[in-house]
Amino acid sequence: LVPRMQEFGETIFAEMSALAVRTGAINLGQGFPDVAGPEAMLEVAVEAIRAGEDQYPPGPGLPELREAVAAQRLGRYGLEYDPASEVFVTVGATEGVAASVLALAGPGDEVVVFEPYYDSYAAVIALAGAVRRPVTLRPAGGRFTFDPDELRAAVGPRTRLILVNSPHNPAGTVFTRAELETIAGLCREHDLTAVTDEVYEYLTFDGAEHIPLATLDGMRERTVSVSSAGKTFSVTGWKTGWVTAPARYVRAVQTVKQFLTFAVSAPYQRAAAYALGNELAWVEELRASLQAKRDRLVSGLEAAGFAAYRPQGTYFVQADIRPLGFDDGMDLARALPGKAGVVAIPTQVFYDHAEAGTHFVRFAFCKKDEVIDEAVARLARLG
Amino acid sequence: LVPRMQEFGETIFAEMSALAVRTGAINLGQGFPDVAGPEAMLEVAVEAIRAGEDQYPPGPGLPELREAVAAQRLGRYGLEYDPASEVFVTVGATEGVAASVLALAGPGDEVVVFEPYYDSYAAVIALAGAVRRPVTLRPAGGRFTFDPDELRAAVGPRTRLILVNSPHNPAGTVFTRAELETIAGLCREHDLTAVTDEVYEYLTFDGAEHIPLATLDGMRERTVSVSSAGKTFSVTGWKTGWVTAPARYVRAVQTVKQFLTFAVSAPYQRAAAYALGNELAWVEELRASLQAKRDRLVSGLEAAGFAAYRPQGTYFVQADIRPLGFDDGMDLARALPGKAGVVAIPTQVFYDHAEAGTHFVRFAFCKKDEVIDEAVARLARLG
Ligand SMILES: CSCCC(=O)C(=O)O
Ligand SMILES: CSCCC(=O)C(=O)O
Repeated sequence: LVPRMQEFGETIFAEMSALAVRTGAINLGQGFPDVAGPEAMLEVAVEAIRAGEDQYPPGPGLPELREAVAAQRLGRYGLEYDPASEVFVTVGATEGVAASVLALAGPGDEVVVFEPYYDSYAAVIALAGAVRRPVTLRPAGGRFTFDPDELRAAVGPRTRLILVNSPHNPAGTVFTRAELETIAGLCREHDLTAVTDEVYEYLTFDGAEHIPLATLDGMRERTVSVSSAGKTFSVTGWKTGWVTAPARYVRAVQTVKQFLTFAVSAPYQRAAAYALGNELAWVEELRASLQAKRDRLVSGLEAAGFAAYRPQGTYFVQADIRPLGFDDGMDLARALPGKAGVVAIPTQVFYDHAEAGTHFVRFAFCKKDEVIDEAVARLARLG
Repeated sequence: LVPRMQEFGETIFAEMSALAVRTGAINLGQGFPDVAGPEAMLEVAVEAIRAGEDQYPPGPGLPELREAVAAQRLGRYGLEYDPASEVFVTVGATEGVAASVLALAGPGDEVVVFEPYYDSYAAVIALAGAVRRPVTLRPAGGRFTFDPDELRAAVGPRTRLILVNSPHNPAGTVFTRAELETIAGLCREHDLTAVTDEVYEYLTFDGAEHIPLATLDGMRERTVSVSSAGKTFSVTGWKTGWVTAPARYVRAVQTVKQFLTFAVSAPYQRAAAYALGNELAWVEELRASLQAKRDRLVSGLEAAGFAAYRPQGTYFVQADIRPLGFDDGMDLARALPGKAGVVAIPTQVFYDHAEAGTHFVRFAFCKKDEVIDEAVARLARLG
């Protein structure tokens, strides 16, 4: 393995999901739902397979999906993108972020990320030969946020990109307009490009509004937005995502993307296009049900003795383990299947300043009520 | 776009397939069949979608497919791999090659490739910050081969990898045991790792035998083999491939792969596992039919005035355009839809020493007989 990647091992998601399979524990680790996506959408994929759409689709994606994405960005956020030159399809948001970072950051460039960060961010920054500059999200008033001065201090002459994930995994924060304004101001001032990961764009709670960074003044021209069908339509395994950005960015990012995987399977693209156009009522039901599940999990974790942070979006709850007398989330996460028959994710692996997250573990609530209930009942015996 | 990628634009496949769509020309450019894969295999994918297998599969792939791949390598080639630690699943062979090169070559390392090379090879070598050292395949006795001295001269103290594609796209060469011995000897002598792209492993003609480089003396331990379902089972759009290698390589390559795309959709993995176990008779029919199509296309191209090279494997015929009075394959390929209603691939884009390939264009024959016949009839009007 090349030196720049030697700090990385197997993803924590692979490790913890394998642990769940091996031990038979309830998997509240990796974020995937246990209820299928909209049936009509699945049938679109089935029909496409039966119709023989099994050969290479166009590398940038099916026009149908690119048009549906452009229509979604316009209808929901008022953002205009030309489907032919400003939208393209990727193997999930993970590939969208990887190709963006690899295309836009090189050796010696600095990339600002908010920690805890989704683990692939750190890895693709390293793969690009670039340097990550983490800004820590810390609890304040029941949610995780950043100190604007810390963000300003992270930006320097070598900064090229800022990676913005909102709704934020694993912190559960939906950045407010004021937070986004701070970020946008720095981008404008230092001529930075923003790469936004918006995969939880529909999954926000209590009226928290997802605001794409690209909608802020002057930001459309400097933002590469990434999203996907996986979380919105409960098909995390389909690995069907998209990038929207000004054409010059699309050309750059797609140049890299095409050599990583070339294309994305057509049946899933057709199904995602169909779903963006026809299944948003289904998504609203999913969102509402997740809000209730969030509350169910938070109450259960509190009853079990954790200090839980109620997220404004995503599938995930951060839980402070100290009230239960534990202090290392990694140790606890590795022991939890044995101790309680539950799998969680130790948040500390998503930090450079690990001490800021040592005492957190992350639980997913995109699961059936009875699964959540059984998991918290088991966790209640921990204390 | 970062400097190291600036020499790359849109892939020639995307450009030429888009040209075919735009002009309605017959697409003998990109290599994808116009007949579907085995029906029972498609139904396995359909059933998996209907059964709700739409969430993240294990990052390294479904055990079922990894076991089927291990069984295939053992049954067909006598190569033993442990499915748990020496096989993993990728988004097609393209991702397998990309992750291998990114994991194993870094800034300043040299990678030997045979030109003409599949275009993603050059791009991922550049993305890794490594340097490509091309060795030219030249016509000799009706097939394309390399000069062993030229290969030896390309290997130096900074060489880390050699990329070996056999059956070779676009040259159509199936490397002989003697050619592979030359390569293996250099790998052993200079402690090189070989990355082999074997996606056309079943598609060889006139008894030419595909010999995996890993079967040669001392090579299993230093070879990362890449293959996929796309060409073998006529599902090029499924983007379902695999890597087999000693465990230490698998750990390295998978470390990179997991951060590019995380996982591959489960329904296609199930279908590929099924096909590897149950559809090899179908593949033998495909192979035989492709051999006949090859002859059909070669005869037609010769009748139209091209000097065509009869390939020993793959989907592709190299055609020398000089007998027709043309000398630049790129100019001809761009004009061909207008001139003749046919799309081909200008081979010169796959060379560093472009002059070695200026006068070749590549035609695909994985098409219905009537499509081939119509294409060559149109080409006959060129002369
Ligand atoms: C490969 S895991 C993708 C993201 C997610 O679902 C998680 O954070 O659990
Ligand atoms: C993305 S094109 C993949 C390879 C192939 O089929 C070709 O060379 O045409």
